[in-house]
Amino acid sequence: MPAKINRQMVIAGIPQDRLEVSHYAMSEAPVSELGENQTLVRTLLISMDPVSRTRITGAPGGLQIGDVMPSSGIGQVVASRHPDFTEGQIVECQTGWQDYSVHGPEALSTFARLGPLTHHLSLYGVSGLTGYFGMAEAGGPNPGETVLVSAAGGAVGHIAGQVAKIRGARVVGIVSSQEKADWLTGTLGYDAAIDRRAGPLSGAIKQACPDGVDLYFDNVGGEMLETALTRMKDHGRIVICGYASQYDTQTPATATRGVPSVVLYKRLRIDGYVVMDYYDQKQTARGQLAAWLEADKLKLSIDLLEGLERAPEGFVGLFNGENRGKRMIQVAEEE
Amino acid sequence: MPAKINRQMVIAGIPQDRLEVSHYAMSEAPVSELGENQTLVRTLLISMDPVSRTRITGAPGGLQIGDVMPSSGIGQVVASRHPDFTEGQIVECQTGWQDYSVHGPEALSTFARLGPLTHHLSLYGVSGLTGYFGMAEAGGPNPGETVLVSAAGGAVGHIAGQVAKIRGARVVGIVSSQEKADWLTGTLGYDAAIDRRAGPLSGAIKQACPDGVDLYFDNVGGEMLETALTRMKDHGRIVICGYASQYDTQTPATATRGVPSVVLYKRLRIDGYVVMDYYDQKQTARGQLAAWLEADKLKLSIDLLEGLERAPEGFVGLFNGENRGKRMIQVAEEE
Repeated sequence: MPAKINRQMVIAGIPQDRLEVSHYAMSEAPVSELGENQTLVRTLLISMDPVSRTRITGAPGGLQIGDVMPSSGIGQVVASRHPDFTEGQIVECQTGWQDYSVHGPEALSTFARLGPLTHHLSLYGVSGLTGYFGMAEAGGPNPGETVLVSAAGGAVGHIAGQVAKIRGARVVGIVSSQEKADWLTGTLGYDAAIDRRAGPLSGAIKQACPDGVDLYFDNVGGEMLETALTRMKDHGRIVICGYASQYDTQTPATATRGVPSVVLYKRLRIDGYVVMDYYDQKQTARGQLAAWLEADKLKLSIDLLEGLERAPEGFVGLFNGENRGKRMIQVAEEE
Repeated sequence: MPAKINRQMVIAGIPQDRLEVSHYAMSEAPVSELGENQTLVRTLLISMDPVSRTRITGAPGGLQIGDVMPSSGIGQVVASRHPDFTEGQIVECQTGWQDYSVHGPEALSTFARLGPLTHHLSLYGVSGLTGYFGMAEAGGPNPGETVLVSAAGGAVGHIAGQVAKIRGARVVGIVSSQEKADWLTGTLGYDAAIDRRAGPLSGAIKQACPDGVDLYFDNVGGEMLETALTRMKDHGRIVICGYASQYDTQTPATATRGVPSVVLYKRLRIDGYVVMDYYDQKQTARGQLAAWLEADKLKLSIDLLEGLERAPEGFVGLFNGENRGKRMIQVAEEE
């Protein structure tokens, strides 16, 4: 029997500035033989995570030309030499952008199904839990507070904003088009939305949050964070969840104006937040999210592209604000 | 009877870069007649507050050439046309750098004496309360934690560090000379001290805090804050109390490197802190500080210069790290 062919999307070039589709190329390799205790996984879904962009700088220790693009994902066991895994089983793992990957048992995790696999790579996965814990726990909005969310139509943001709304806050989202702004207010229940490309951001935030911002949930960093600082109420809180504005560049802005001066005179609180710190409560969170989804209090948006070959365009598009909700690539169907 | 002469230290020039003694000049003016409800106060003690430097930029709304240098202080009532104030009474007010000042009743406050007047302009005044609340309440050190204090020999810092020590923390101070470092460890009870001029700060913090910093109490900002960020433990806390490194310049650094990136990956918490937010508890705090002072658990350092004419050198010296504890100017003796 001939070895299976593994299509792999590899790094073909290191960007000088912004990432482009041409920085990737498809290559093929035979699927490697399983070593002792190893499991072969066929990729079903690939997660598109903006922060992965920061590994493509050409720096030592980062990704180099020829490397398979890394990614988390969901796959199905094809063969296993470890007793815990059997053919057909669904697993989460670092699939990478390829058809097949081989893993030791420590690199595979199973999960209790709560819905379609796409839900597990979004709402019940890292991005959904990040939005949930980041808002419900790290942010802790109080009823009546004004909550501002950046990248509010993204995988994390669209969940975070809805959680704040469920908790009784007035929620304002910042997005990259009027169309997405309309989606936030029309479908997701945001109280107001700002198209960041429509004009100066400071004035737009002031108009949408005339009394200032109590809680800013930031996925973007850079000038957006700097502008938001000036629109916070005294004693306002900022949750730093990401800084996507600085991912797609070889020259990231490494400093934030207004720190410490504005932080001091407004008595702001800034919290760096990483979802893993809350993982001991993830089953409870998944149950809560499932209940809200069931009751239609929460809407989940999945932005699915079909085919491994579309991974580069799907990924590059994240940095142009193309996605609505969680973007992922369907590589194969569950069998 | 001839009008009293009021010596006034006025702004004589706007610095291009660092403030110098030559940017001040003494002038004289007659003491003005009291209007209805006004009180004439003779200045006894002038507080030297680094942040006042930020008003001498030449910017509209700031201090201009010829203006009396503003300052809080303690004085004694000479005459009053308001029933609440009588000759000989001790008051706190914005004396400015001058022999006499005239105030409405809302601008004067009296206080219950707990010791010498110098204690009231230091330990029981803004700087002492800032160190106390900033550490005890905003910082909240836990026993065994490593607490780092910048400007640790200053008016605020020398109190903050001792409060952390009383609360059971391991306390490390950053100062501007080996002599002050020895004073911190030899007299104030700090566990370790760093002379910031002796070599690279990052390595020195690493040596003094080998397991990282739990709580950083920052009075300095700029590169010191940036360096401290990289030495924090995961989940460490930073209290922003001031940013004195950026006061004595016409070109302050307005941004901090490592925000948001280091804040995110270390899950840091940054709190802007202003003492006035705790003023409803100030009598309790003064009682606690008095008890610690009485029990010799806390040492107060006052850096007193005699004579209004020495105010410029005293103030400029703050930015060279000359002072040990709270610097103030004795303009006249209580009568």
